[in-house]
Amino acid sequence: MTAVVYRGARDLAVVDRAPEPPGPGQLRIAVAYTGICGTDLHIFHGDMDARVGASAVIGHEMSGRIAAVGAGVSGWTVGQPVTVMPTRRCGRCAACRGGNSHICHAMDFLGIDSPGAMQSSWTVPADLVLALPDDLPLDHAALVEPVAVAVHDVRRGRVAAGEQVVVVGGGPVGVLVSVVARAAGARVLLVEPDAFRRSVAQRIGIEAHDPGTTDVVALVEERTGGAGADVAFEVSGSAAGVGTAVDVLTTRGRLVMVAIHPQPRPVNLHRFFWRELELLGARLYQRGDVTEAIRLVAAGVVPAEELISRVLPVAGVTDAFTALEGGGGVMKVLLDWREGAG
Amino acid sequence: MTAVVYRGARDLAVVDRAPEPPGPGQLRIAVAYTGICGTDLHIFHGDMDARVGASAVIGHEMSGRIAAVGAGVSGWTVGQPVTVMPTRRCGRCAACRGGNSHICHAMDFLGIDSPGAMQSSWTVPADLVLALPDDLPLDHAALVEPVAVAVHDVRRGRVAAGEQVVVVGGGPVGVLVSVVARAAGARVLLVEPDAFRRSVAQRIGIEAHDPGTTDVVALVEERTGGAGADVAFEVSGSAAGVGTAVDVLTTRGRLVMVAIHPQPRPVNLHRFFWRELELLGARLYQRGDVTEAIRLVAAGVVPAEELISRVLPVAGVTDAFTALEGGGGVMKVLLDWREGAG
Ligand SMILES: [Zn+2]
Ligand SMILES: [Zn+2]
Ligand SMILES: [Zn+2]
Ligand SMILES: [Zn+2]
Repeated sequence: MTAVVYRGARDLAVVDRAPEPPGPGQLRIAVAYTGICGTDLHIFHGDMDARVGASAVIGHEMSGRIAAVGAGVSGWTVGQPVTVMPTRRCGRCAACRGGNSHICHAMDFLGIDSPGAMQSSWTVPADLVLALPDDLPLDHAALVEPVAVAVHDVRRGRVAAGEQVVVVGGGPVGVLVSVVARAAGARVLLVEPDAFRRSVAQRIGIEAHDPGTTDVVALVEERTGGAGADVAFEVSGSAAGVGTAVDVLTTRGRLVMVAIHPQPRPVNLHRFFWRELELLGARLYQRGDVTEAIRLVAAGVVPAEELISRVLPVAGVTDAFTALEGGGGVMKVLLDWREGAG
Repeated sequence: MTAVVYRGARDLAVVDRAPEPPGPGQLRIAVAYTGICGTDLHIFHGDMDARVGASAVIGHEMSGRIAAVGAGVSGWTVGQPVTVMPTRRCGRCAACRGGNSHICHAMDFLGIDSPGAMQSSWTVPADLVLALPDDLPLDHAALVEPVAVAVHDVRRGRVAAGEQVVVVGGGPVGVLVSVVARAAGARVLLVEPDAFRRSVAQRIGIEAHDPGTTDVVALVEERTGGAGADVAFEVSGSAAGVGTAVDVLTTRGRLVMVAIHPQPRPVNLHRFFWRELELLGARLYQRGDVTEAIRLVAAGVVPAEELISRVLPVAGVTDAFTALEGGGGVMKVLLDWREGAG
């Protein structure tokens, strides 16, 4: 079988390996499509070498079909379409004991801490596998994992029908948060400086504004009769984005922190006090978020065709990473792992 | 009657004025005791001259007895013990329309925006007056307003029995938050650099630590089996306090922002993301918080005797403010307005 392995910063290799037969409690999956996300790019840049070992198979956004069933595993048939929830909890840490195992402190993240999805044959614990509807195209299904992130974020923000939502940052996660919030009945306004990303958002009916030319706070005030937004999502990772997300909020508004901010950011805590704002960190997803993501993708609520910019053969993996790190011109890029593809 | 008026920075005068008879919908109160809070000190320092007019009567923590009942007001008898909720909503702003009138954007705060409690006869709208139990000593009752702040803060933090709470900052509000959180069944740990404040807390059974000599994060970890605190209250107003309040929290822990931070503070947003922390601004109180505060003071849950450091005659008002701005050696200072007092 074929696998993409990380050999060091900016060095991915397509290698041939023997498929791993499923042990007890495991399933072997014939991978169909994998997505590439920001975390994969971080690994590619060499930023995660402390966690990602040499010759590691990366990747965690995927779809595929059951290829073999391990001993003691029931309820699955070969050929059945599936996806994998790549987060394995330890069951013993404070987060797990406190009922928050989805952000386990000692998490085994498949594709970072242990072998990931970028291999034509992936053997995983059966309890991480979720069934997909038979009629869901497998390229669309490769979006389930990032959609689950968006579902979790929107749930954390308690977005309700009729609310005004502002999403700061229009990469794949920001656009998906916008789509999921809209599906929850919210009025959504996306803030994104990149023209291509705005055009993707606008094509799927998400109103998108350039913060360089639009006074976003004034616009939101105008839209809400002076009140401000009910919920803001900070997905940009920038200091300016944090400022915008705080400034647009109404009294008791909620700010969902989705982006990674490696360094401390100056935050207007006086406004948190004065307006009784809420800040809510949001990371990864719970199993219910993944099943809801499957439902949203299968129902066509997530416009998968518009969000998948390119599907490349596995041999083009380095091109795919390079296109994504350029940022402009692509939203979601998939690799096609199906037999005979490429 | 006697009143304390603010004439400009560091200039308070005790003056004689004619009492204002209650108009329709009003009650005239014979003030018994007033407290002095941080806001009063800000006014004294000249920091709030934009809101506080010349010759304004300041003060908003008080107890007293009904002295006269205005036209159209029923349910009150002369001599009945009362306190006043000094926050008057506008009823029209976005906060009021959104059900958050307790932090109305155009609030009339008695003692800042209109005449306050530091007068022997105070005439106020009847709907801001709350009855006190007959057997509640009126000096204790002067603590009801700051206790209401603490009740509101603890409610915002959703403090539950058995939870580990860390209060950062041990001035009057921090100590009252500790007392109210303890009454909710929490285990409370107070962090305060001032030795006198720690001694007051310890005398009433609140465990207090000096952040200069104790590694608070390590101590909280030890107490919680490595998990961290469920709720932290930032009451110090310092950048270091914000850092401590974030660092002590467990996964999905809540940080209640009680203090005023005039400038933006660097915040570890990555930790908010990673542990899915919550930040909750908390300001003032709702009517239910005030009635709960009355109950807690009347029941002796709030150890009023231990918290009232001094009771001074009105003529000593400047001494009282000077003692408080020194910080050390006093917790709560009251003025005695009763006839014949001083
Ligand atoms: Zn990802
Ligand atoms: Zn764990
Ligand atoms: Zn006050
Ligand atoms: Zn209002």
